[in-house]
Amino acid sequence: MKGTVLYGPHDVRFEERADPKIIKPTDAVIRISATCVCGSDLWPYRGISPVTQPTPFGHEYCGIVEEVGRAVTKVKRGQFVIGSFFASDNTCPTCQIGYQSSCQHRELVGSAQAPFLRVPLADGTLVATPEVPSDDLIPSLLTLSDVMGTGWFAAVAADVKPGKTVAVVGDGAVGLLGVLSARQMGAGRIIAMSRNESRQKLAREFGATDIVTERGDEGVARIKDLTKGLGSDAVLECVGTQESMMQAIRSTRKGGHVGYVGVPHGVELNGEELFFAHVHLHGGPAPVRRFLPELIDLVWNGRINPGKVFDLTLPLDQVAEGYRAMDERRAIKTLLRP
Amino acid sequence: MKGTVLYGPHDVRFEERADPKIIKPTDAVIRISATCVCGSDLWPYRGISPVTQPTPFGHEYCGIVEEVGRAVTKVKRGQFVIGSFFASDNTCPTCQIGYQSSCQHRELVGSAQAPFLRVPLADGTLVATPEVPSDDLIPSLLTLSDVMGTGWFAAVAADVKPGKTVAVVGDGAVGLLGVLSARQMGAGRIIAMSRNESRQKLAREFGATDIVTERGDEGVARIKDLTKGLGSDAVLECVGTQESMMQAIRSTRKGGHVGYVGVPHGVELNGEELFFAHVHLHGGPAPVRRFLPELIDLVWNGRINPGKVFDLTLPLDQVAEGYRAMDERRAIKTLLRP
Repeated sequence: MKGTVLYGPHDVRFEERADPKIIKPTDAVIRISATCVCGSDLWPYRGISPVTQPTPFGHEYCGIVEEVGRAVTKVKRGQFVIGSFFASDNTCPTCQIGYQSSCQHRELVGSAQAPFLRVPLADGTLVATPEVPSDDLIPSLLTLSDVMGTGWFAAVAADVKPGKTVAVVGDGAVGLLGVLSARQMGAGRIIAMSRNESRQKLAREFGATDIVTERGDEGVARIKDLTKGLGSDAVLECVGTQESMMQAIRSTRKGGHVGYVGVPHGVELNGEELFFAHVHLHGGPAPVRRFLPELIDLVWNGRINPGKVFDLTLPLDQVAEGYRAMDERRAIKTLLRP
Repeated sequence: MKGTVLYGPHDVRFEERADPKIIKPTDAVIRISATCVCGSDLWPYRGISPVTQPTPFGHEYCGIVEEVGRAVTKVKRGQFVIGSFFASDNTCPTCQIGYQSSCQHRELVGSAQAPFLRVPLADGTLVATPEVPSDDLIPSLLTLSDVMGTGWFAAVAADVKPGKTVAVVGDGAVGLLGVLSARQMGAGRIIAMSRNESRQKLAREFGATDIVTERGDEGVARIKDLTKGLGSDAVLECVGTQESMMQAIRSTRKGGHVGYVGVPHGVELNGEELFFAHVHLHGGPAPVRRFLPELIDLVWNGRINPGKVFDLTLPLDQVAEGYRAMDERRAIKTLLRP
């Protein structure tokens, strides 16, 4: 088959790769229905995270089970399944308390921008939909593999509760779905931080009640203005830079919660500032697997439509253009169809 | 009156100072029954935090109300009261959610190692005991002004719950009272990290079930050994150095909680390590005022005896020896009697 390989900064190729096959008895191979480009793929694409050798890419996926290893008992051939970017056994003590992305046996799933994919630990990783979905549900189901699960985790980590004020730092797909998550969890007020018109529009559609266009200290000052000088009860950090992290912490009220899901690049937190900030901090790689059953249910029943973050759909062989469009912020998120 | 003044590293003097008086109508003046030396006083004493001019010292206190300003309505002359090192109005939105140490009108109380003390915002800051206590209760009541409230907050911030495994980094008075707090909250297993025999003994008396003498990476490895490789559910950080903070974070299980109350000195947290640690972080200056009613009740009814951390009692005029004894770790904590 042909699949996506990142050779170096701005060098994405779609080229011949070995067909995935069952290696361990706990594996499954799935036929990808849809995959996509993640904001975090842009870090290596832009050369900020080094790529030392040609590397297959992509970690968001959903599709039909083609084949399972002999130890796989729950996942069946023909099912439509969604899994996380971290494969997990879903039975170890870390999985059992809901941190499957830190599973003691986790494996990164890193070659999903392709027509077929080997998924390790299939029983613990993959969750099947009630039946094979209609085509229009596929974009929303695909988001559950990472971006929606990550926005949801940001809101969970920030302890979003009914009536609370929530601010979201970052207007990428994760931030926008953080807005949707906060809305779904009953937040009273949702402040999206964005200076991009099309993203502001989608943020409002997803439930944002206020838009703040300022960044850094000015952004913090605006959040304070909107919250009687207190700061927001909950802040979702969905970028991963020093500026965005400090913006999130400083926008949070005393005793409030920061949920951070942006993969940190060059972030250093000063202990003294953190101490006197008096905030709760939680985050990390989203344990998507924890949320899959609930989120599949919400999508299946039409309660949420996170697939709206895809504003560009391309055939998989045009994956390079998919990266370019996101890098240049022409697209929020690119869906790829094999 | 004579009171304590820190002139510079290792230079504590007991010398003539102005008598405290009512300055604002919300003030009270109290006659100190007992005060003490805090582990955090050792930072400036050791020259790690700079002292630029002669500075009155001490922030832990309890005593009898001598005089109140005309706007004080709850606190009465003759009552025995305890207050926090941060005066708070206890009515602002930040106080109302229990973060009185970040009160919008907070004032540091910083000259308590003296026979008399002005306490700002008396109604919001001071809590009276049911009646004037007998002398034997005074050491335990005094701890509620900071050290016990801080150990308690560490446990609250670390989400200590019945049956959980708790590790405590730091065997100073705060750490030891963190052990006592965890026990009181029903922790199943309490691991105290200490290499000092007398402190180990007190830790065991307060409820520690295990002692770990190793520090740094070796300490982390021991905690992992004791917890099936997972790490502790809750870790209380009661020191404030880079080493202790990283020891705390790395000793915590995925999804677990770090409560940090050691005032940070030179601490920098790497964003990427924190991200993949998957822990909850919360802490800061303890909102002692939140806990005072509950803790007074526990002391009053003999349920806890935190005053045991005082292993040296001196007349107030020997305050310099009190600092020396703690600096040289000859004493865990020094109580001072005017």
